[in-house]
Amino acid sequence: MSVHRVFQALRIVTVAALVSVAALPTAADAQTPESRVVIQVSDADPGKWNLALNNAKNLQTDLGAKNVDIEIVAYGPGIGMLKADSVVGNRITEALGAGVKVIACDNQMRGQKLEMPDMLNGIGYVPAGVVEIMRRQQEHWAYLRP
Amino acid sequence: MSVHRVFQALRIVTVAALVSVAALPTAADAQTPESRVVIQVSDADPGKWNLALNNAKNLQTDLGAKNVDIEIVAYGPGIGMLKADSVVGNRITEALGAGVKVIACDNQMRGQKLEMPDMLNGIGYVPAGVVEIMRRQQEHWAYLRP
Amino acid sequence: MSVHRVFQALRIVTVAALVSVAALPTAADAQTPESRVVIQVSDADPGKWNLALNNAKNLQTDLGAKNVDIEIVAYGPGIGMLKADSVVGNRITEALGAGVKVIACDNQMRGQKLEMPDMLNGIGYVPAGVVEIMRRQQEHWAYLRP
Repeated sequence: MSVHRVFQALRIVTVAALVSVAALPTAADAQTPESRVVIQVSDADPGKWNLALNNAKNLQTDLGAKNVDIEIVAYGPGIGMLKADSVVGNRITEALGAGVKVIACDNQMRGQKLEMPDMLNGIGYVPAGVVEIMRRQQEHWAYLRP
Repeated sequence: MSVHRVFQALRIVTVAALVSVAALPTAADAQTPESRVVIQVSDADPGKWNLALNNAKNLQTDLGAKNVDIEIVAYGPGIGMLKADSVVGNRITEALGAGVKVIACDNQMRGQKLEMPDMLNGIGYVPAGVVEIMRRQQEHWAYLRP
Repeated sequence: MSVHRVFQALRIVTVAALVSVAALPTAADAQTPESRVVIQVSDADPGKWNLALNNAKNLQTDLGAKNVDIEIVAYGPGIGMLKADSVVGNRITEALGAGVKVIACDNQMRGQKLEMPDMLNGIGYVPAGVVEIMRRQQEHWAYLRP
């Protein structure tokens, strides 16, 4: 084998090493995440419900609705926000239409003997609101508690 | 030295480079943390105290108590939750028994001239509740503010 | 070319690979961030305004003012905290003097027809408070909602 071929082999090793390094998910990626926000609603207070919906709207207006994922999670005393007779029912429907995910906590619904027909159309459900909020933070979503 | 030995050296370099890369803590690790949640209590409101305790219980029920680390930090007006005469005293004892850490803020205790004998048994103490909550987030704990 | 020069080339490749690896921002960096905290104020409640200011002060006292970056963001019903006639005006001035950043949300100001002359001196402004709070979390600031 010639020295020329040794150098060819060397070049392959170098490129392979650099490609491996480039393919690593690095903290640099973590520093430039997409915009993703989980908004917690845990108060039985329509003022807070409206504030949560304002927050979602402002995020979409400022960043562009396509550039931000928003998930509102209602649990505990906040579950009333998502009942069929909620005073913010129209705004929830509007938010869903604008691409905001709106999620109710099954735990809390069972506690209040609420079934899906008692709730607004189009919302989602999770077994436990607090677990959902924790998971979203683990996935690097920002957390907002109005 | 033969070309054969050059290739042997090359192989060692390659393996060393790949091992270095593999040993790096990467963002991939950060994306799969254990379940760890710090719960803030900063309201003088027994409704919030109960909600914080419900949140801890739901996290343990849903994930299994062994699979989630939970720390409740009471500070500011929330310190009353951990006084010996707290209306949620029994629930705190139960939570401690279930492996939840419960922490009082020394700063706030000094401000209210509270000493350790004024507080519930089994709880922990930190110099400043807000510093504890910040540190936990730095360590990638999720944050929950009921 | 001699085998000696091949080894010289090998050494250069190795060093280059190790330098590349060392220069990567890794999750290890993310695990030891500086102390940076964004504090949200979204209640029209002077008790919460004082608690937010206490939190900032305690962070500075405990960690040393030079060792922690603190940003208070007031938005929604919390904007009153930063009006020129705010009941905590003196404390805001004091916090600014101690190096705390204090930020008002333009969105909310427009909603209440507030202009900069209506606000306390020395504060900063952002187009949307919620976007600022999201961005800070993306940059690994801890989040505190008193």
